[in-house]
Formats: sequence, structure tokens, C-alpha cells
Amino acid sequence: MPLAEKALIARLRRETAEGSNVVTGIGDDAAVLRLPAGHEALVTTDFTLEGIHFRRDSHPAKSVGHRCLTRGLSDIAGMGGEPLSLFLSLALPRDLAQKWVDAFMMGLLNLARKFGVSLAGGDTAESPDGILADIVVLGSAPRGKAILRSGARPGDRLYVSGALGGSAAAARRMLDQPKRRLKPANYAQHFFPEPRLALGRMLREKGLASAMIDISDGLSTDLAHICEESGVGAELQAEAIPRATVGKPAREVELHFALHGGEDYELLFTAPRGKRIPARFAGVGITQIGHVTRGKRVFLMNEKGERYEFRPQGWEHFRSKS
Amino acid sequence: MPLAEKALIARLRRETAEGSNVVTGIGDDAAVLRLPAGHEALVTTDFTLEGIHFRRDSHPAKSVGHRCLTRGLSDIAGMGGEPLSLFLSLALPRDLAQKWVDAFMMGLLNLARKFGVSLAGGDTAESPDGILADIVVLGSAPRGKAILRSGARPGDRLYVSGALGGSAAAARRMLDQPKRRLKPANYAQHFFPEPRLALGRMLREKGLASAMIDISDGLSTDLAHICEESGVGAELQAEAIPRATVGKPAREVELHFALHGGEDYELLFTAPRGKRIPARFAGVGITQIGHVTRGKRVFLMNEKGERYEFRPQGWEHFRSKS
Repeated sequence: MPLAEKALIARLRRETAEGSNVVTGIGDDAAVLRLPAGHEALVTTDFTLEGIHFRRDSHPAKSVGHRCLTRGLSDIAGMGGEPLSLFLSLALPRDLAQKWVDAFMMGLLNLARKFGVSLAGGDTAESPDGILADIVVLGSAPRGKAILRSGARPGDRLYVSGALGGSAAAARRMLDQPKRRLKPANYAQHFFPEPRLALGRMLREKGLASAMIDISDGLSTDLAHICEESGVGAELQAEAIPRATVGKPAREVELHFALHGGEDYELLFTAPRGKRIPARFAGVGITQIGHVTRGKRVFLMNEKGERYEFRPQGWEHFRSKS
Repeated sequence: MPLAEKALIARLRRETAEGSNVVTGIGDDAAVLRLPAGHEALVTTDFTLEGIHFRRDSHPAKSVGHRCLTRGLSDIAGMGGEPLSLFLSLALPRDLAQKWVDAFMMGLLNLARKFGVSLAGGDTAESPDGILADIVVLGSAPRGKAILRSGARPGDRLYVSGALGGSAAAARRMLDQPKRRLKPANYAQHFFPEPRLALGRMLREKGLASAMIDISDGLSTDLAHICEESGVGAELQAEAIPRATVGKPAREVELHFALHGGEDYELLFTAPRGKRIPARFAGVGITQIGHVTRGKRVFLMNEKGERYEFRPQGWEHFRSKS
């Protein structure tokens, strides 16, 4: 077994928290976990693959660990759920430096601690090529209260948290200027995105959202998911869509990044007309960007009042499109 | 997105069972699952990586799918748990034939159906190199009743289900004769191992086992896990260890495969002296192979009554040891 893998297993065992909801963590065939009374389980799994989701030369290991867990936590946020435990499966190339693994774990565990999520298990293996992580997050929500994608109704208002396009704009710069290393501090939305757990929980507790999704594939794709699952359409105001600012000096990203760029991990949700949605919650802005319609198509209105059909555009990370 | 991946996503959506314990499956940010009343959650994750756990030229795709899920189900069996749902994360190389994916899914889903386990979610990605699967199985056990590795006490009897070494003996033949393809029917324990769920459940329901583990890393390694977690030692009778028969004509495997070979997916458990353990359950033999001792070391007695210290030997799948 390669050294990095051995050290990782020792680390995983050390970090595995028993107590809280973890009855038995790493060190048995399966983790044993207790859910809060009256809750259902939420389970989400997400790959993070070198060369697809990150590149070792442009992403610090700490950022890779952070982003890996954000993907799972953001899915729980998108259900209005409470995150409980995480499981990390990690396959490492034989020659990987221990330093890389340590920094990766630091990024992941700092975020886990921030949201009170315990490391409850996982798997390690030697990778034939490249770093491969699969993260599983177990969460919970009171029975029947998880906010699904399927609850949007015509007339509902459409909202988004934070600002969009910052992550994709950073990825674009990396692809355009592969030699230049971006400063993570100037592109925080890309390197250290925050899952919107507090906002998701509040929307669920107060019964404000009719449907919700986290924006991992881009606004156009994730809105299409809500519309498809709810059997509705939508109309968006282009100028209402909040655009991220990135770089130094900070500049607002171009509209297409906000429309189609993935990995922002903001929340997109719908709320019935009568519900009062705060303009800000837990330090994050909330913006109305459109409304839900009866038809099944999605339209985008520009500032001149022209109306275009708004089709989902896939978000392909660091691979060119096929 | 490569075709195989697109078809897989469609397939996953089609196969995702709602109803039973799955409230919401694929098609939302996270799956929503209901546990039986009074139960705790069991979660296990296992990688299956091309070149490490299987080789595309020697393992039919159907066997790879079957073995992939067996790894997770066997962990649930090792806790005496009930399997509920599975999550499949699958990264596929761009050029992989659709036929391969179909056969893989057939192997996996046939086994899932046999044990009433629903496909509740997962993730897909393009793999930079080789097929990568990560399987998560969610199960449950009545609160406080899961059978842990830590419950063995001096004086307990040590039992094993089935026969050992068949999987490793097949792997050895593949490594020794890479040109010859083994017939899966003659090496079923390797290509289509059965998780011992019925036995695990019975031992938990009747309160017979004090500690249990599934044999995935080999008897010597997995027994060491029980001893370490329980703070005990053990003494084994070499000639009592049931050895698998493999090949055609069928021949009993050499002792070292039964002692150290991994991936048999049999159950190893301890039971207090007074408990009556049946010699057979659900078509599988159960054999006493030794007993638990007060010291922390493990000894193996050969047929001449000689006593050797029995140290764990790692099981390294299809990679040479480092």
C-alpha cells in the first residue's frame, strides 16, 4: 500500500467523530448513524476527478478538498436539509506527495467542521492514474419537508442567492492562460465556494420555497431541471440576474457566465407570489430574477424587452465540449 | 457528454425505484429515503477500479457490476443489517462501448433485485482513464442492534460461513495465465460472489453473534480487525478452515488462499460459548474454526499441533505488492 494511502487511512480513523449522530464510524463494515426523530435521510454522491473537475497545477489541494465537500453540502442545501455526515472515497496515485493529501484533507475538514458535519467513513484505493474522489453526504429533513425540484407552480416567483458566473469566469481564465496561476483570494467563488445551508434551512423551516435546486450545472441547465420536474416554464429578466465580480481589480463577469456557468453553488428557488422573501439572509443577497409560467418553455428577456428562448447549455468543467 | 454516459443517466433514471423506502430518487439534488421505524442507518462505500479490482480483459462486464454491488451488500451483511438502497457513481472512458455499460448494469441490477435493494441515485462522469465505480449502500438495523467488530470476548467461538480462498485462487490463475480466460461458471466465488445477507440478519435477530465482519481482505486481515477492535486474540485450527473448490475438474484451493485471500465475502463471526450455531443456514455451511483468547495475538495451529503466530497479510487485488 502506498505511503500516502496508509497515512490517509490513519488520518481518516483519527478524524472520524463518534458521538453526535455517528454511533460507529470508520473501523467497522459500515458506519452506524442515527437520524433526528421524525426525519428522513437525504443522500447525495458526487465525483471529483482530476482533469475533469480540477487540475493539479491550477488548483491548490486545499481548494480541491473544499470544493469536493461543497458539491455534496450544496446538494443538501438545495433540499433545505441538515447535513449530518460525510463519507470520503479517495483513490490516489502511488507517487502522490503526502503534503498534497494533508492539504486536501485540511480543506475538506475545515469546511466539514464549519457546518458541524462528521467524517463517518469512506474507502481508499490506489489510483491507476490521477486523483479520484467520491464524496457522499448524508443529511436529513423532517418527514415530507425536503424541498424538491418538482413543486414550482405557474405564477411563482423565481429567486437566486448570491451572484452567478464567478466560478466559470475563473475556469475560463485558467483555460485561456494556462501558465498564469490565479490567486484563490481573488476568485473565492471558484476556489472556495460556500454551500448555502443556512438559507436552504430557513426556506424549508418557514415554508417559503415551492421548489429548489443548487446551481452546480449553470442557471440555464438547473432552471431547466426545475421546469422539467415541475412541468412548468419560466420567464427570466436578463438584467435582474446578479453577476459575480472576480479578479483584481474586481470586474463583473460577462452575462453568459452568469447564465450558463456551473459550480456557483448558489440556490435557485421558486416561491408562491404571496410569500415575502427577504432581500438578504445570513450575509447572502437574494434576488428575484423572473417567474414561473404555464408553458413548458423558458424565455429570457433582455433590457430592450426582446424575448429569446433560453435553452440549457451543459457545463463541462475543464474538458472541451464534444 | 459521451454517448455511454448519456445512455447511463437515462438508464439510471428509468431504473430508480420510487416507493418502498425511496421517497425521491434520481432527479433531485439528493435522494430522500425513509428508514424503518426504530432503525439506525448503515452506510458503506466501496471503490471498484479498473486495473485494481478487475481487468477488462479477464472480467465480463456483468461480473464487474455484480462484484461492485456485492462489496457494499456484504458490508451490510457483516453488520447484520437490512440493505435498502444503492447509489452508483460511475466514471466511464469516452470510448467505452454501450454494450459494456449495459452488461455491467445488468449484473448490478440483477443482484439488487434479488435482495430487494433499490437504485436511489448516483453520479456519472467522464473518466480520464479506465472505468471507475464507487458504490454506496444504505441499510438499516434496529437501534443498537448492528453487530460490530468490537464485541468479541475471550472464550467466544470463532465461525466462518461458506468456504474460503476461491476468489483469490481464481485471481492467481488469471495473473499466472493472462492469456487464458477463466470460465465464470467454474469460478463463481470470484466472478459472482453472494453477499450473506440472510445469515447476517439471522445472527442479529437471534442475538447469536458477539462480533462480525465480512471477509473482503482475507481471513488473516479481517480476523485481525475483529481482534484489534475487540481487544482480544484468537487461536485458529488450520485444518478446520473450510477451503473452496474451484476450476473444472473442481479442486480444493491451497491453504494460503483460504488464510489470506480476499474477496470471498463470507462472514467471520464470534459467538459466546453457550450459543447454538446451526451447521448450515440458507444453504450456506457454518464452521467453527477456532476461539477467542485473552491475549492480543492470533495463533494458527497446524494438524501436528504446532502453533504459529498468524499475522495479517494484505490482499492487493490485481496489483503486485510494494
